[in-house]
Amino acid sequence: MPPVVLGDTKLKTRLALVVEYDGECYAGSQWQPEVLTIQSEIEKALYKLTGESARVTMAGRTDAGVHAAGQVVAFDTESSLEERAFVSGLNHFLPLDIAVKSARRMSLAFDPRRHASKREYEYFILNSATRSPLWNGRAHRIAGELNIDAMNHACQLLIGEHDFASFTSNTEDEERTTVRYMYHASARRDGRMVIVRMMASAFLLHQVRNTVGTLLRVGQGKMTLQEFQSIINTCEFGLAGPAVPSYGLYLKSVYYEEGF
Amino acid sequence: MPPVVLGDTKLKTRLALVVEYDGECYAGSQWQPEVLTIQSEIEKALYKLTGESARVTMAGRTDAGVHAAGQVVAFDTESSLEERAFVSGLNHFLPLDIAVKSARRMSLAFDPRRHASKREYEYFILNSATRSPLWNGRAHRIAGELNIDAMNHACQLLIGEHDFASFTSNTEDEERTTVRYMYHASARRDGRMVIVRMMASAFLLHQVRNTVGTLLRVGQGKMTLQEFQSIINTCEFGLAGPAVPSYGLYLKSVYYEEGF
Repeated sequence: MPPVVLGDTKLKTRLALVVEYDGECYAGSQWQPEVLTIQSEIEKALYKLTGESARVTMAGRTDAGVHAAGQVVAFDTESSLEERAFVSGLNHFLPLDIAVKSARRMSLAFDPRRHASKREYEYFILNSATRSPLWNGRAHRIAGELNIDAMNHACQLLIGEHDFASFTSNTEDEERTTVRYMYHASARRDGRMVIVRMMASAFLLHQVRNTVGTLLRVGQGKMTLQEFQSIINTCEFGLAGPAVPSYGLYLKSVYYEEGF
Repeated sequence: MPPVVLGDTKLKTRLALVVEYDGECYAGSQWQPEVLTIQSEIEKALYKLTGESARVTMAGRTDAGVHAAGQVVAFDTESSLEERAFVSGLNHFLPLDIAVKSARRMSLAFDPRRHASKREYEYFILNSATRSPLWNGRAHRIAGELNIDAMNHACQLLIGEHDFASFTSNTEDEERTTVRYMYHASARRDGRMVIVRMMASAFLLHQVRNTVGTLLRVGQGKMTLQEFQSIINTCEFGLAGPAVPSYGLYLKSVYYEEGF
């Protein structure tokens, strides 16, 4: 049942949510016709909670199968529900593989995508001779030996401002800049798991998965650090990768400019 | 197709497997009529690989929903397949939520249950105000504050040889001893996850889940360390717990006497 409107007193406010999801069953974060997406599930839950047909916008577009621990989502509402009531109410209506971690009222100027200053992703590589039921659909498995030191050295070459054109799959949009600022890039081992972490101003289409695929070639001894550097330098599509699967990728956090 | 038998030259050998599984879809580790169990899935895969109807035995009986990173399973076979062929062959036929990590030929005297000297379990508690899609079915959620120091102090009271009768749900079998040796017990925090780890000579029915349920009362300030100690001392069913859900429990490792 939609909320009762008392005259013209309803005030539109903008809410931001931090959302966690297991992307396995979804065709990505953005709405698409006739398939399940993170956006469509959140919009359905919002309708059930508030009676409003809100359109939600997201900080990062994630592909089919990609997971998130800290996706940021915003929408406008006339509901006067408290922030914590949005959290518990949406979690009641959302499927078990999507959950709201927190909610906050923002100014109507807030844009979760444009005002994000940094995005942080992690990619999980299960370095194991056998598959792991407890990491099924959650990590990409590589059976052979990996030189993590070499992968981490290659990561250091990514840090700073670079044209990352070599690492995107988007070759159509030639007008937009492919220059991004990489704040952090590292590869570390935790038992049989190898975790590649990257934090940048923003990422290009498939940039993390193409970069991790290239780092794996360094880790497997199939590519030198010099060759990795020259792939960065050429700014040309086709030398990097191959892209690793989406199900090892996690959008960890989105950071915002001061004031948001 | 069963393997071809050449006269009487087939030799029976015993194989031990280390097995990992996500217990969510199974009615426990041990065979039961008309439901899926870990045992029935491994026996089906063995039949597909070797053509033999083997009966497998396991180091630890795990309840419905309980996971394992290092369950130990043994069976007899006349197959001359190499150990690594058992690993890859069984992983080919097993469902994605069960996998063999390693295989080893043992003496025919080897009993995975009787010869196990220590079992190690971990229980995962998600200490979070909201549910977590990435830990759905993998950890028990507690929303409120937990005093991990107090829980860890209570764990220390469990270490050594004790009659753990207070912590079992099995009140029928009065003839068998309920004395066990606890080698390790601890509670630690890793971000929003609280992990209780216990290693003992063996565990009684529901012992880990009843103990963690009692430790949570200590962590929530509902029980003092003195009361926890007196529950150990009384050796009486009904004071401990309530048992926490099975899906937070992991059989981590099984250790064997020298010679196995």
